[in-house]
Amino acid sequence: MTDGRRYTVGVDYGTASARAVVVDVADGRELGVAVYEYANGVIDARLPAPDDDVVLGPDWALQDPADYVEALRRAVPRAVVDAGIDPAQVIGIGIDFTSCTMLPTTADGTPLCEFDAFRRDPHAWVKLWKHHAAQPEADEINRVAAELGESWLDRYGGKISSEWFFPKALQILREAPGIYHAAGRLIEAADWIVWQLTGVETRNNCTAGYKALWSAEDGFPDRQFFAALDPRFERVVDDKMSRTISRLGGAAGGLSEQAAGWTGLRPGIAVAVANVDAHVSMPAASVTRPGTLVAIMGTSICHVVLSETAPAIAGMCGVVRDGIVPGLFGYEAGQASVGDLFGWFVERGVPPEYHERARARGASVHEILELDAAALRPAESGLLALDWWNGNRSILVDADLSGMLVGMTMTTGPAEIYRALIEATAFGTRIIIEAFEAGGVAIDQVVACGGLPERNRLLMQIYADVTGRTWRLAASSQTPALGSAMFAAVAAGAEAGGYADIAAAAERMAHLRDAVFEPDLASHAVYDRLYAEYARLHDLFGRGGDPVMKTLKALRLEALDATHSGPAPVERAAVETPVAG
Amino acid sequence: MTDGRRYTVGVDYGTASARAVVVDVADGRELGVAVYEYANGVIDARLPAPDDDVVLGPDWALQDPADYVEALRRAVPRAVVDAGIDPAQVIGIGIDFTSCTMLPTTADGTPLCEFDAFRRDPHAWVKLWKHHAAQPEADEINRVAAELGESWLDRYGGKISSEWFFPKALQILREAPGIYHAAGRLIEAADWIVWQLTGVETRNNCTAGYKALWSAEDGFPDRQFFAALDPRFERVVDDKMSRTISRLGGAAGGLSEQAAGWTGLRPGIAVAVANVDAHVSMPAASVTRPGTLVAIMGTSICHVVLSETAPAIAGMCGVVRDGIVPGLFGYEAGQASVGDLFGWFVERGVPPEYHERARARGASVHEILELDAAALRPAESGLLALDWWNGNRSILVDADLSGMLVGMTMTTGPAEIYRALIEATAFGTRIIIEAFEAGGVAIDQVVACGGLPERNRLLMQIYADVTGRTWRLAASSQTPALGSAMFAAVAAGAEAGGYADIAAAAERMAHLRDAVFEPDLASHAVYDRLYAEYARLHDLFGRGGDPVMKTLKALRLEALDATHSGPAPVERAAVETPVAG
Repeated sequence: MTDGRRYTVGVDYGTASARAVVVDVADGRELGVAVYEYANGVIDARLPAPDDDVVLGPDWALQDPADYVEALRRAVPRAVVDAGIDPAQVIGIGIDFTSCTMLPTTADGTPLCEFDAFRRDPHAWVKLWKHHAAQPEADEINRVAAELGESWLDRYGGKISSEWFFPKALQILREAPGIYHAAGRLIEAADWIVWQLTGVETRNNCTAGYKALWSAEDGFPDRQFFAALDPRFERVVDDKMSRTISRLGGAAGGLSEQAAGWTGLRPGIAVAVANVDAHVSMPAASVTRPGTLVAIMGTSICHVVLSETAPAIAGMCGVVRDGIVPGLFGYEAGQASVGDLFGWFVERGVPPEYHERARARGASVHEILELDAAALRPAESGLLALDWWNGNRSILVDADLSGMLVGMTMTTGPAEIYRALIEATAFGTRIIIEAFEAGGVAIDQVVACGGLPERNRLLMQIYADVTGRTWRLAASSQTPALGSAMFAAVAAGAEAGGYADIAAAAERMAHLRDAVFEPDLASHAVYDRLYAEYARLHDLFGRGGDPVMKTLKALRLEALDATHSGPAPVERAAVETPVAG
Repeated sequence: MTDGRRYTVGVDYGTASARAVVVDVADGRELGVAVYEYANGVIDARLPAPDDDVVLGPDWALQDPADYVEALRRAVPRAVVDAGIDPAQVIGIGIDFTSCTMLPTTADGTPLCEFDAFRRDPHAWVKLWKHHAAQPEADEINRVAAELGESWLDRYGGKISSEWFFPKALQILREAPGIYHAAGRLIEAADWIVWQLTGVETRNNCTAGYKALWSAEDGFPDRQFFAALDPRFERVVDDKMSRTISRLGGAAGGLSEQAAGWTGLRPGIAVAVANVDAHVSMPAASVTRPGTLVAIMGTSICHVVLSETAPAIAGMCGVVRDGIVPGLFGYEAGQASVGDLFGWFVERGVPPEYHERARARGASVHEILELDAAALRPAESGLLALDWWNGNRSILVDADLSGMLVGMTMTTGPAEIYRALIEATAFGTRIIIEAFEAGGVAIDQVVACGGLPERNRLLMQIYADVTGRTWRLAASSQTPALGSAMFAAVAAGAEAGGYADIAAAAERMAHLRDAVFEPDLASHAVYDRLYAEYARLHDLFGRGGDPVMKTLKALRLEALDATHSGPAPVERAAVETPVAG
C-alpha cells in the first residue's frame, strides 16, 4: 500500500441501474462513482431476445441476474478509476439491493434462467420488487395466517404485501411447479450477488426479517403454516432456503478470486452481509440511535426508526431486531405515493401554460409549480387532499384506498393543487410519526435523504411545519451506496483499518448538510388545524366510516369486466338530427 | 301588407350582447337574426372613458344602458333585413333580459348615469346580474328576514342571493345615498327597455316574483321589514318602484313613435311585458304544462318546471304563480357550476398532450376529452365528484361549499376526470329532480336547451342514464329570443294574427329535435349505485355532517388576511448549503 488511506466500495443495486461508489473510510468522502444501467432493465412486457415472443402478464416485473454481475464488472473498476486511488487500498465491499427481489437458482447458485431448458419460462427469471402478479398468493397467505392466528402477523401490521418473498415463491410453485421443483435455492438477489462475490451462500437478517417473515426469536413461520397453503410448500424453508441467517454488520466472506477478477479489487477483502437500499441509508444519514426518523424520499417514502424495545405499532411494514442497526429494533413504515404523486400531477394535470413557462426559463415544470406554490401561505390554497393514489401503506395498510381532493373553486389552479398534494404527503408522514409516538417510540427529529428533498426546499419546509419537528438532510446524495461502503468498513473490521461497528463508522463517515428546516410556529399552528381535518377524513375514508373508495373500486372492476363483453352504452345513443328551421 | 304572413321579433339581452330574431308566427321558423355586442360590454374594472380613472371594487359588474337602446337600433333592423321580410308584417316585439339586472333612473326613465352630475358614481350605472358586491346587504337581508320570521323566505329556499333586487338597491342606499335619493325609479333593465319601447313604465311579474320578493297573494314584503333594514329604506317600493305588476303574456303597450324609428317597425304594434332569459325559454322548448323539467344549460343550469299547486320544496331558487306560464306556478332551481366547471377543467387541468391532439384534429379540447370520456363505461373512471366549484345553489343553497374529487389512482387521466365532472353535474340534477318529486311536483321527462347540450352528446346520454328519464333537446338554438318572439305573438293577440295564449303559441311555434336520449337500463343501474355514493357524500359535506369545506374556506380567508401583513414563511426558510464531501 502506498499510504495509510483505506477505502471501501459500496454498490447500490437499484431498479434500473447499479451505482458503485468509492469512499474514504476515514471521513466518508465519496471519491469516485460509476453507474451501470442494466442491459435488460425492467422486464415487464416480454422476455429479452431471442425469447421475446414470450409475453408477460399484467403486473409482472422481472430482471436478468446477468445484469447484476455485469454491474460488478463495469461499475466497480470505473468507480475506482474515477476515484484515482490504488485498488489495493480498498479493504472491503458492501452491497445493497431493492427488496424483495428474488430468484430461483440451482444448489450452486446458477440462476435457472441461464439454462436453455428453463429460460423461456418467466418464472425462471428474477422477480423484481415491483412484480405485483403474486397478489392472489399474498391474499391467500394473509387469509390463512389470520385463520391460523399466526403470531408473526403482528410484526407486519396485520397484513403482508404481494411484493414479499413467500407470495412470490408460492406463485412459482402454483404457476410453474417444474421451476419450483428444479430450484435448489430461492434467494434474495441481495444475497445472491454476495454469493457471487464470495462463493459462499449467506442470507441477511434484514430481508429475512422484513420480507420473509423471519425473526431472531421465532425463526420462520412453521412448516404447518406453509403446508396449510399448499402441501408441496411445507418444506420451502428447509429445501429452498436456509435457517442460517447472517447479521448485518458482519462479513459474508472474503472476495473470491473470480470476483476479484471482475472488480479489480484484491481477493480476500471483506464482503459485507447484504443489505436493503432503504435500511442501509439510515446510518448513511448519520443515524444509529433511537429518536430520529430517517425518511428515504423518492417516488415513495420509506421511514425507518430505531428503538430499544419493540412495542406493537399499528400499520407498520415491519419491526426487526438488528434489522437496521445491530442491537436495536428497526421499524419500517411507508407512504406509497409521494414523488410518484407529484409526477402524476405534472404529467396529467398541469396545463400547457406551465410547460411553456418551464421551457422559457430552462426549468422543470416541478420547479415552476414549486415557485408558485411557495408564494402561497398554509391553508391559502383552500384545498385538502388524501394522498392515497397508490393506496395507503402506513398506517392503514390498505391498497384499495384512493386519492381525494376537496375545496376546489373556480379560482383553484395548478399551484394550489401542487401545494395541497405536498401538504397531504406531509400530513401522511405526521400520521406515521404520531403512531410511533403513541406506541412509545419517540421521534424527536427527522433526517431526510433521497433526490426529492434535495431538489424541493418548499417540500422540506412544509414537512417541518406540518410535523412540528426539525428536518435535516443527509449530506450524501447517494446514501444507499455510502451506507453499503460503511457496512463494508465494518465488515473489514477495525484491525484492517475499518470500524468495530456501524455506529463508529457513522460517526466518521456519515454527515448532515448545514441546512436546517425548523418548523415555523405560525405555519405549524395553521397546519395543526388543517391536520385535524386531514386526520378526521383519514379515519372517515380509511377506516370504513365512509365506504366510497371501496365502492368506487368495486364498481370500476365490474365496469372493466363488462367492457370485455359489449359496446359502451354511448355508442347506442340516438343520433342527433336537428329539425329543419 | 303583401301577404297573409305575420312575424314577431324577439330580442334576447344577454351578458355580452343582444340578439334579435325575426320569427314566423305561423310555425316558429327563425328567418333572420342579428347580434349586437355591447360597446361597453361588462364594466368590471373601471368606468368607460372619459371616466376610466374611476376604478371599481372587486365583485362589481356594471353595464351601460345606452348599449341596450343601441341594440334596438342596430340588431332589430338588421334581423329584419336578414329575414328578407316586410317590416310592416311584424305584429309584435318581445324582449327578455338577464336578471336581476337593475338601474336607477329619474321619474321619466332617464338613467342617472347619463347625467354629468352622476356619471362618475358607479352606483349611477346598471348593476348587472353578476354584480356580487352586495353580499353584505344580502347577508343582512337574510339575517333580518330570519329574525322577523318573514313568510316569503320559504318561497326562496330560505335564503336570497346577492344578485337580487333588494340587496343591490340597499347597496346603493348605503354606499351612495345621493344616488338613491336622486333616483325617481329603481327598475329592472328588462322593464326599463320595455319602457323605452313603449313610453310606458311597467313591471313584469317574473322578475318581481323571482328577484324582488313579490307575490300575487302578498305583494312585496311590508314596510316594517324594509325599515328594519334601514329607516331610509322603508318606502323603497312606494317611492322607487311600483305595486302595479304586469303579468307575462300581456302587452306592456304599443311601440312608440320613437322606438319605431329605432327599429324600423310600425308604431303601435304590441310590445310584450318583459321576461327573463331562462324563464322565457320554457315555452320556446315547447313546454307549457306540468310534468316536464326544462334545463337551460350553459355555464350553469337553470331548471324550470310548472305545477298546478305550490308545495314547499326545499332549496329552490323560487316559486312564482304565473311566473313562467300564466295560470301555473313556476318553480326555478339551479346548479351553479356546469359548463363553467368543464371550462375550468379544460383551462387549468388538462395537460399539453390533449391540446396538441385538439390542434392536430382541428377540434376543441372539449371535443377530444369527450371522445376519450365516451370510451369509458359508467363507473370505469373510478372517480366521484361533488360539483360545487361555485358552491351549491339547489338544493343546499350554500355558496361556501366547494368541489371534491375522490377515487384517484396513478392511472387516472384527464378523460376520467372530465367524465366524473359531467357525471357529478348529472347527479346534482338528479338531486333536484328527486327533491321536486319528493315535494309532490312530478318530473316525467326533461327538455334541455342551450349551447352545452347541443355540443355534447355524451353529456346528454349521461344525464339520461343518471336521471333515468328521457332527455330531449329544444329545436331552437336561441330559445330565449324565440320565446320572446312567442310572447310578442301572444301580446299581439289572436285578432292581429298572433295567439290567445302562450300554450297556443308554443303548440305552433316551438319544436323539439328528433334526437331522443333514452336512459340505458344497464348504465342507469350502475349510476343508481354511484348516485347512492354521491347522495351520501352530498349530505355528509353539504349538510354539516363533516365541516371540512367550511373549515377550509375559513382557514383560507384567514390566510389571505395574513398575506397582507407579512412575508410567507417559506421566505424565511434556511438556505441550503451542501457540506463539502
